[in-house]
Formats: sequence, C-alpha cells, structure tokens
Amino acid sequence: MPELRQDPLSGRWVIIAENRAARPDQLATTSDVSVEECPFCPGHEGLTPETSAVYPSRSTTQSWKVRVVPNKYPAVEMNASGDRGEAAIGIHEVIIESPSHVASLSDISGDEARLTFIAYRDRLRNLRQDSRLAYGLVFKNARVEGGATLEHTHSQLIATSNVPADIQFELAKAGEHRMLHGSCAFCDLIDGEVDGDRHVLETDSFAVFCAFGSRFPYEMWVLPKEHCESFESTRDSELVELADLMQKLIRGLEDTLDSPAYNYWIRNAPFRLSSHDDYHWRIELTPRMTRLAGFELGTGCFINPVSPEQAAAQLRSVFA
Amino acid sequence: MPELRQDPLSGRWVIIAENRAARPDQLATTSDVSVEECPFCPGHEGLTPETSAVYPSRSTTQSWKVRVVPNKYPAVEMNASGDRGEAAIGIHEVIIESPSHVASLSDISGDEARLTFIAYRDRLRNLRQDSRLAYGLVFKNARVEGGATLEHTHSQLIATSNVPADIQFELAKAGEHRMLHGSCAFCDLIDGEVDGDRHVLETDSFAVFCAFGSRFPYEMWVLPKEHCESFESTRDSELVELADLMQKLIRGLEDTLDSPAYNYWIRNAPFRLSSHDDYHWRIELTPRMTRLAGFELGTGCFINPVSPEQAAAQLRSVFA
Repeated sequence: MPELRQDPLSGRWVIIAENRAARPDQLATTSDVSVEECPFCPGHEGLTPETSAVYPSRSTTQSWKVRVVPNKYPAVEMNASGDRGEAAIGIHEVIIESPSHVASLSDISGDEARLTFIAYRDRLRNLRQDSRLAYGLVFKNARVEGGATLEHTHSQLIATSNVPADIQFELAKAGEHRMLHGSCAFCDLIDGEVDGDRHVLETDSFAVFCAFGSRFPYEMWVLPKEHCESFESTRDSELVELADLMQKLIRGLEDTLDSPAYNYWIRNAPFRLSSHDDYHWRIELTPRMTRLAGFELGTGCFINPVSPEQAAAQLRSVFA
Repeated sequence: MPELRQDPLSGRWVIIAENRAARPDQLATTSDVSVEECPFCPGHEGLTPETSAVYPSRSTTQSWKVRVVPNKYPAVEMNASGDRGEAAIGIHEVIIESPSHVASLSDISGDEARLTFIAYRDRLRNLRQDSRLAYGLVFKNARVEGGATLEHTHSQLIATSNVPADIQFELAKAGEHRMLHGSCAFCDLIDGEVDGDRHVLETDSFAVFCAFGSRFPYEMWVLPKEHCESFESTRDSELVELADLMQKLIRGLEDTLDSPAYNYWIRNAPFRLSSHDDYHWRIELTPRMTRLAGFELGTGCFINPVSPEQAAAQLRSVFA
C-alpha cells in the first residue's frame, strides 16, 4: 500500500510505492518490452486494467485514438492505508495518446494529439468531483532518459489527496503578489517576458518563453495569455491550439537537439481554491540532456549550462 | 560568468554556468573520453589546471595518490559577475581519488580512499578561511547515470558564497528541535534509528541507516554517533574509519545491485554558524536506479519503489 512520507528535517516528500518495483523497467537502465508485448498497442487492450475513458467517445475497441486506463503499478491508491507514514491516497492513470507504437507526441496525428489534451482536461474534470482528491498532475515522460518505462507514447495523471508542497509555495507567492500589486503574478510575468530576450513564440491564446530560472537547457514554459486558474476550464478550441503548439515545440526540440528524451507537466491549480488563492496554470516542457547528480541532490540547486536567453535565441530561430 | 538565479514564483534556485556546456559529455548521453586522453591519469597532469593540493603531502608528480585540482569547467567562480541574476561566486574543485583509471571508490586502495576523505576535510578547512565563502558541498558522481562525465574515479567540491536553501531549511528545523527538546535533532534521530527496522550497521564512530523519507531505493545515511556540527572537525582516525566504511557500503551496493551508478554527498554545516544555529553533518549515499521524471519535476515529491525498511533488511543481510 503506497505511503506518503515527509522527512522530518529536510522537509522532503516521498511516496513509498513498493508495488512499482514490479514494473517492466524498474530498477534497471533500459526498457526491454518488445512491440509484440506492448500493452498499449491495439489488440492488447486486455493487458491493461479496464478502460476509464476512450476517444473519440463512441469509438470501439478497434477504432480508438486515445485510451485512458488505470496504471497497473499505481504510485497512489484510493484504498491506501498508512503504516508508518500517511496513506498515499489517489488515482494514477495512463493516457495512451495513439494506437501507433511511436515514442513521442510529435509522432502522432494532429487529431490524436488534440484528443490527448481533451482527455487531460476531461479526466481532471472527472477526478475533481471526488472530494477526497485535492490535486491532479498531468505529466509526460518521453524516452528512457525521460523516465519512460514503456516506449509507446503515453502521458500520466496522478491525483492526490494532498496539494504538493511546491504548489502550495507558488500559491502563497502568487497570493503575496496579488496583495502587493493587485494583479496576477503570472499575467505580470507574461507581460514582462513577451518581446524580451527569453521570448520564444506566441499564438492567439498562448505565450511561450524560456523561464528566467530554467533548471534545464531549453526548458520552455507555455502559459495561457488570458488569466486562467485551472487547466480544467480550458475550452475545446484552446485545447486544439495547445495540442498543435505542443507538437510544434516538441518537433522543434527534436530537430534541433537530436530527438532528446523530454518531459512536460501541467502546473495546475489545486482542485479547490479558497477565495484568497490565486493561480494561473502553465505547462513546463524540457528536454533532458543533463543529469541530476550529487550537487543538485545535495543542495536542491540546479546547474544549467545553457542560459535561457541563449536557448530562447536559438529556439526563436527554429520557430521563425 | 556563472550566475545564481532564483525563480520568483517557485523559489527554485539555479546556477546558469554557460562555460560548462563545453564539458566532454555535456548535453550528450554517454561519456566518450578514452583512457588514453583521460586528464586524471598519471602523466596527464598537464591537462588539468594547476594542482591545489596533493596527497601524500610530499609526493611528486610521479608518486601522488590523491590530487586536488580546480575544475576546468567551473559551475561557480571567484570573479563571477551577475548580469541578470546574482554572481555565482565560489570555488569548484575536483578530487582525483587515485592514479588508477577505475570507476568507483570501491576500486581504489584503502590508503587512497583514506587520503580522499582527508582531502575532503582539508580542502573544506582551507576554503572556509575565505570570508567570501559561506558553504562547501563535497559530492561524488559515479558512473554515467550518476552524472559522471569522466569515468576516472573523482569527487568534487563546490564552495559558494550563499548557504543553499535546503541547508537553511534544515538549520531552522534543527534550531526548532533544540528549542523544543533541548537536544540535537540528528542525535535524537540516530537514537531512534539504532536497532530499528531501518538500521543497517554501526561502527565505533558512525551509524548507518536507511532514512525514513528515502527518495531513492537503498539510500543510506551515515552520521557520526557523537554530536559533530562540521565535517571539518572530523579527526584523522575517524576519517580512516569513515573511508573504510564508505568503501564497504559501496562494495555492498555494487555486489547486491549489479554495480549501479551512485552518488554521495556530505550535508555539512555552513562555514559560519551563528550561536543559535545547530547542525550535525551526515553523508547521504544512494545508488541511482530510478529516474527523476515528470512527477518528481512537477511536484518536488519523489516516488520510491523500495521502502527503506525493506532496503535496510536486505542491506543488513549483505553486511552481516
């Protein structure tokens, strides 16, 4: 049964999830599941737990484009019970982004990518109905160095009964900013970055820039230009624009950097914001070309060998 | 010029060090420096910057066992100047642990390992004399997955003009504990762990256990049993015991887990503690068999598939 623990002195949080040690590639360095055995490929639907959702919504076992299933090795469970720590209560789902056995969001059709982003929103909308759940993180691990244990392109959603400490920290900061300036910290951030030297590109609804404190080379942040607290309130038309944009950004990284492993995740508001809380969702997208090593683990401070200004200049030319 | 930046909203710290992009393996996935070109092998002393210290202390270019040199691609520099962030002022050194081109602390002689730990202490003692430096982190990255860009066994020391936020957090926690209980939080932690189900082993001067909030499978903490704030105050006889212990622990991990990549680092007190500060140094040693991926990067919370209790039981049998 997964357990949530906080180290009493460092304040670090960890989920102890022993059932995950049984995963295909866990505690090993490379993924070794062959295409023939891939549980995410069509015809192998029986290898995954029962489908939570399927897109298009009336599709059959033969015709799905995106499938959502419970993770077979969940990091959190609704019936978890804490033995030495707190129970790590939650839901852990996998979003299979396409029937095609390909490694990246950039390799699937535009339709599949759009349905993937619609699935993200719909699953968050669904899970927030459960009063036991407080937060939902959508994330994607692509390729081995990005933490993917199965190659077939997929994302994950972990909803938990607690709000992660990092999100609480940002909420507090955004609240302070609102009190001091009467405005949203993230809206102000976008205003400061648009046309600046960390700017990458803009679409009708979204701004993309390399963050001032980028932890990784070529890390990009994608924010809705109009103030929007929760990813769940994103409209269909915006999700289409976002899916297209994400495919474009990932293709740009892959062309420029020799198809690196990458991660993205949605920094989203908690499911229930109190009246004084303030947030503005964003996606953080980063290739994984540097390793977290002793210095990062020993201090919490990252070393990034490519400045966001240099990365943005290079990326602007890629997307020009 | 390296720059220290804090993201205004997430509070995350990063050092932007563009000169490090020139490192042999930076922004690539494997190390490709051949033994013939290894700058840490004897006879190649001219390939590294001028020696900062050498052990045994009177050894010649031909007879050194441990050499300390400035890092050729430093993450921090004494003459750094901040352009957009703070200047990342500091010293970045490499401790070459042996003339032998081997990959692990476990592969070198007992003498070389002891001199390595003496070098750690002596370099910290030396650098703390500089009033511009506030903190020194000694760390080791072994093998590619552990972040080593050169195979030849070595450690690093990064001394900075600021105290990392993680250390400040622990200092505050330890201060609180002292105020509430009148005792050292770490001494009390050792008392609680000795003979408990996370206990691994004990020597005359050191206790080893798997931490309650272990972020990684088989993560071990090594603490001096007698209260001791700074690693710099460790005596020669204790350093000999510690070097022997670290070699034993690493050999145990390598035998049990098929020679994994690993890291260790010394969580040390800042160079200058104020009268109300309280600390107790420790070493954190961890094999690197899981990857930090989207969930960890998106929430700051780690997922560990092996409970510290299970890891400790297995490790006790290895060291029995």
